[in-house]
Amino acid sequence: MKDAERIKRVAERIVAARKAGDDVVVVVSAMGDTTDELLDLAHQVSPLPAGRELDMLLTAGERISMALLAMAIHNLGFEARSYTGSQAGVITTSTHGKARIIDVTPGRLRQALDEGAICIVAGFQGVSQDTKDITTLGRGGSDTTAVALAAALKADVCEIYTDVDGIFSADPRVAPNARHIAQITYEEMLELAACGAKVLHLRSVEYARRFGLPIHVRSSYSQQTGTMVTGSMEDLPVEQALITGVAHDRSEAKITIVGVPDAPGEAARIFYTVAASESNIDMIVQNVSTESSGRTDISFTLPKSDGPSAMAALGKIQESVGFKGLLYDDHIGKVSLIGAGMRSHHGVAAKFFGALAEAGVNIEMISTSEIRVSVVCRDTDLDQAVRAVHDAFELGGDTEAIVYAGTGR
Amino acid sequence: MKDAERIKRVAERIVAARKAGDDVVVVVSAMGDTTDELLDLAHQVSPLPAGRELDMLLTAGERISMALLAMAIHNLGFEARSYTGSQAGVITTSTHGKARIIDVTPGRLRQALDEGAICIVAGFQGVSQDTKDITTLGRGGSDTTAVALAAALKADVCEIYTDVDGIFSADPRVAPNARHIAQITYEEMLELAACGAKVLHLRSVEYARRFGLPIHVRSSYSQQTGTMVTGSMEDLPVEQALITGVAHDRSEAKITIVGVPDAPGEAARIFYTVAASESNIDMIVQNVSTESSGRTDISFTLPKSDGPSAMAALGKIQESVGFKGLLYDDHIGKVSLIGAGMRSHHGVAAKFFGALAEAGVNIEMISTSEIRVSVVCRDTDLDQAVRAVHDAFELGGDTEAIVYAGTGR
Repeated sequence: MKDAERIKRVAERIVAARKAGDDVVVVVSAMGDTTDELLDLAHQVSPLPAGRELDMLLTAGERISMALLAMAIHNLGFEARSYTGSQAGVITTSTHGKARIIDVTPGRLRQALDEGAICIVAGFQGVSQDTKDITTLGRGGSDTTAVALAAALKADVCEIYTDVDGIFSADPRVAPNARHIAQITYEEMLELAACGAKVLHLRSVEYARRFGLPIHVRSSYSQQTGTMVTGSMEDLPVEQALITGVAHDRSEAKITIVGVPDAPGEAARIFYTVAASESNIDMIVQNVSTESSGRTDISFTLPKSDGPSAMAALGKIQESVGFKGLLYDDHIGKVSLIGAGMRSHHGVAAKFFGALAEAGVNIEMISTSEIRVSVVCRDTDLDQAVRAVHDAFELGGDTEAIVYAGTGR
Repeated sequence: MKDAERIKRVAERIVAARKAGDDVVVVVSAMGDTTDELLDLAHQVSPLPAGRELDMLLTAGERISMALLAMAIHNLGFEARSYTGSQAGVITTSTHGKARIIDVTPGRLRQALDEGAICIVAGFQGVSQDTKDITTLGRGGSDTTAVALAAALKADVCEIYTDVDGIFSADPRVAPNARHIAQITYEEMLELAACGAKVLHLRSVEYARRFGLPIHVRSSYSQQTGTMVTGSMEDLPVEQALITGVAHDRSEAKITIVGVPDAPGEAARIFYTVAASESNIDMIVQNVSTESSGRTDISFTLPKSDGPSAMAALGKIQESVGFKGLLYDDHIGKVSLIGAGMRSHHGVAAKFFGALAEAGVNIEMISTSEIRVSVVCRDTDLDQAVRAVHDAFELGGDTEAIVYAGTGR
């Protein structure tokens, strides 16, 4: 009954939007534990399920939730029609499990909207251009589906519902006085997402920026206005706030390659090997050679989930490259300061490092972009680092942010 | 785990057929209780779910089982690909919940077979020609999908797996000495199915007869040869057995309309009303007028599930037609004797009625066709009636038939 009650509540919210006079297209995910249950079944019949069939299986999850949602909307007296990714015109590459959207041809949705219906579309899925097989889009796929459909239908806005009231100047669970952000540029949101803010997936923000589509990030649990992601840094007024917020990330690990021969081409060979293991490298630091033997240490960070395969790949080339050893450290944290105003102001980095030093946080790696400064520290220092930086730049508000129960998005 | 184990067993059986050198197309149903669970969810969100959305929802069931089955086959080292009804080219009318197959265009299946793959197809579903919406075929839909695909692919045979070793001279649960039938004509099978034999659905037999496609009915639980449904009565040898078997049916109810004015057009009006309520009438008996007032009673049988709507429709016309009352009796049973040899032999009906009389079974209604005699009796007399007729025509064998655990098909 929990699922049914939740669906009915969502239906009421959609009908309210329709009553306000808007054409509404809703993109849904699978309910609750459906995806995990289906994955469990798959692993019971096969240790390594084929991608094509896994996609066929998992897309049953959205099929169930979208049909139920359409029924619940009918029950409130409104016309609703559910569409699979394929029916909605989501055309993708044929890489099962992580297909990319190539094109969106929402002819059926357009017609249904013109006939006054609410469209319910399965997120996370499409149909491959080449093979006409069902594909899934992988991580961030539901948000990306929503943004892609909104762009193709030239929607005014794409609302993305989550478990918080939008974007905050820091994670309210770490910095309770974090301030709600009413509006943020695509560039800032991209940096935040890349630095560990979980609210929006990088991919959907990139897609929205390309099409200039505003995203409204808001909570499923409240009627509050959330955060508008829109506009580019070029359009910002001069008096734009210096700093947008602080992001942090506990999901990375650090690999150190010890005693690499300090010769041209060795680093390239190492990173080629890591890339070939399909690991995503984030920050890289190469130490100055300290040994008279002409050797150096290279450290880089990557998602913890990519750690084992990267270590295995590096182990295989240890002998041929001739480095001395590999260290794996998964007790690191990353704290980042992001702000479009940073471009035109000096001293931001100095103040950032000063705040961390004052809080006794040891900095292990540093990385910067035009609108971001990030450091790696011990994971046990991470919360304190976030609060120190958040306070130093006076980002907090007067009230405590509301944190809703997690939804496991 | 039960479902996973079952899927793996089915996969082994399919691979054995492929190893024997045959091109294999498998049509699957939803697993276990999936359909009931989905229906339950639907009724939790809406008391009367829209047909289009209910079809979208229910087809998730086959999607899950077909993907898992394809994975299990891969795991045995064979190539398999799953296809929805739509992908397999099952084109239907747009009547949701009970669509009819209009055409089958199995181009993708043909190509996959040519490439050496085993095809797994979702039964019970298709795509509507007009609206391109997902449809379901209603009762008997999975068997009909299998027959339709086999016909379109010009298969040698369509094997239908069930919980018994084929067709028997009576239901072995009622007549334990029932004899296994190795071969039966389409006409006899149609009569058996229409008279309550649950093994094959009428619709799939009609489809197979139209295309001259042999159906092999066999058990999922054994490797025994089952029953071949093939050939027409015209091809039967002269010495064909007189009688094929006895069928019985507990799923019908009897409605009696009391005191109908015995005037032209009244019966037509009554049956037009029942038909308009979408009830399927089986047998009809009109009593001779016994009252001096020129009134008569009309009785007919129909599926119990159609009873309430037929009674409601008749109640509405009671006043205008001027009949005296309605009786509803759902404690009836029907026993039928079927045999192609019956056409050219006299005395079959007499012997049939004689056997029932000797067993003390009271006959309430009679209906006959060229190759069938049916009677309605009390449901409590039904088992005894089946055994009496089965024995009178010496249909039994020397051994007891094997009955496997039911599968809830």
